[in-house]
Amino acid sequence: MNQFSVLINVPVATKGLVRELRVRWMHEELGIPYEEIRYPHPETKKAEYKKLQPFGQVPYFSSGDLCMFETGAILIHLAEKHKKFLPGEEKARAHTLQWMFAAQTSVEPFLFHHFMLTWDPEASAASIARAKQIVNEKLQVLSASLGTREYFGEGFTIAELVMTTALRTADSKGFLVDYPNLAAYLKRNEARPAFQRALNEHIKLYED
Amino acid sequence: MNQFSVLINVPVATKGLVRELRVRWMHEELGIPYEEIRYPHPETKKAEYKKLQPFGQVPYFSSGDLCMFETGAILIHLAEKHKKFLPGEEKARAHTLQWMFAAQTSVEPFLFHHFMLTWDPEASAASIARAKQIVNEKLQVLSASLGTREYFGEGFTIAELVMTTALRTADSKGFLVDYPNLAAYLKRNEARPAFQRALNEHIKLYED
Repeated sequence: MNQFSVLINVPVATKGLVRELRVRWMHEELGIPYEEIRYPHPETKKAEYKKLQPFGQVPYFSSGDLCMFETGAILIHLAEKHKKFLPGEEKARAHTLQWMFAAQTSVEPFLFHHFMLTWDPEASAASIARAKQIVNEKLQVLSASLGTREYFGEGFTIAELVMTTALRTADSKGFLVDYPNLAAYLKRNEARPAFQRALNEHIKLYED
Repeated sequence: MNQFSVLINVPVATKGLVRELRVRWMHEELGIPYEEIRYPHPETKKAEYKKLQPFGQVPYFSSGDLCMFETGAILIHLAEKHKKFLPGEEKARAHTLQWMFAAQTSVEPFLFHHFMLTWDPEASAASIARAKQIVNEKLQVLSASLGTREYFGEGFTIAELVMTTALRTADSKGFLVDYPNLAAYLKRNEARPAFQRALNEHIKLYED
């Protein structure tokens, strides 16, 4: 059975924002069973865990004798294996990959930079404002690119799955109030039964 | 013919570190012709350009009636089209994608965060030191993962292409002096004739 690692004693502020949720949601969308391997926080920083995920983070993913990490790579692997959520047709495939990478490399790094400054007691208001401005520039691009369409790609794909989870992070910092179409997009994808099942399972980790 | 956009009036500090180099290098590795479409900086921020690359960055890539952006997605597209540098076998493919994503999502965002702080006149020495420490933690993982092997994956793939360009950025900030195996890896991949051809063409943009 497919397995992936999850953390069980992380701060409640991370609830619903851990990368593991992407892989869990993908399994729910595909309708395939999975087993979560629970790790308390310090365990993932030890040498034994780092054999499976060298950065000491969750999730690693394993299936049979395959073991891998990086959620983007895991989603592509699962999409190709099950022939779902990553089109085979050249153009649709290129644009699906494009928007998946956009979420991970043109949006999330700037959210991370802003997040780090907001937690830095020495960061100036001007530095935080500049970081916020960069995030807003990226969200303006996403908002304009989505326009009135339902999805960035052609239907629900791994691009929408990753973009939705990236926007959850943006939303948790209050960034989406100025982008009603992105907020509606987020709400629409979060309403998917598979996402609701994944989120409910994920939240159980915080209830023990 | 394949085309991609390049910037012609950017600060010399970016020489050899622009994302366009990835796509150019890939074309040289594949031995296929390409045409560069030159844009002066303000042009890429205008609405006309943003129809091709909504974030206003280089490169966009076009081939026939396909137009796309995000270097990671472009490299996967080219690798699949030409059946090179991204293995078809399940495990080798998964690990190639894994290390490509690792370079872009587990290393580069932290280099960016550090870079932004070093350019922030208000950033404290302690903030910069913390950002530097995070980058070093990531490089330690890469160094341990590579060990004495020649490549992260099985031979030269798009993972090595992206990792090499990410490490060029790290090296430009002096980060590789403590990681001789990563420095040697970088030197080895930079010595590839295709990289040398790409770099020479790229550098011409700064000579006009």
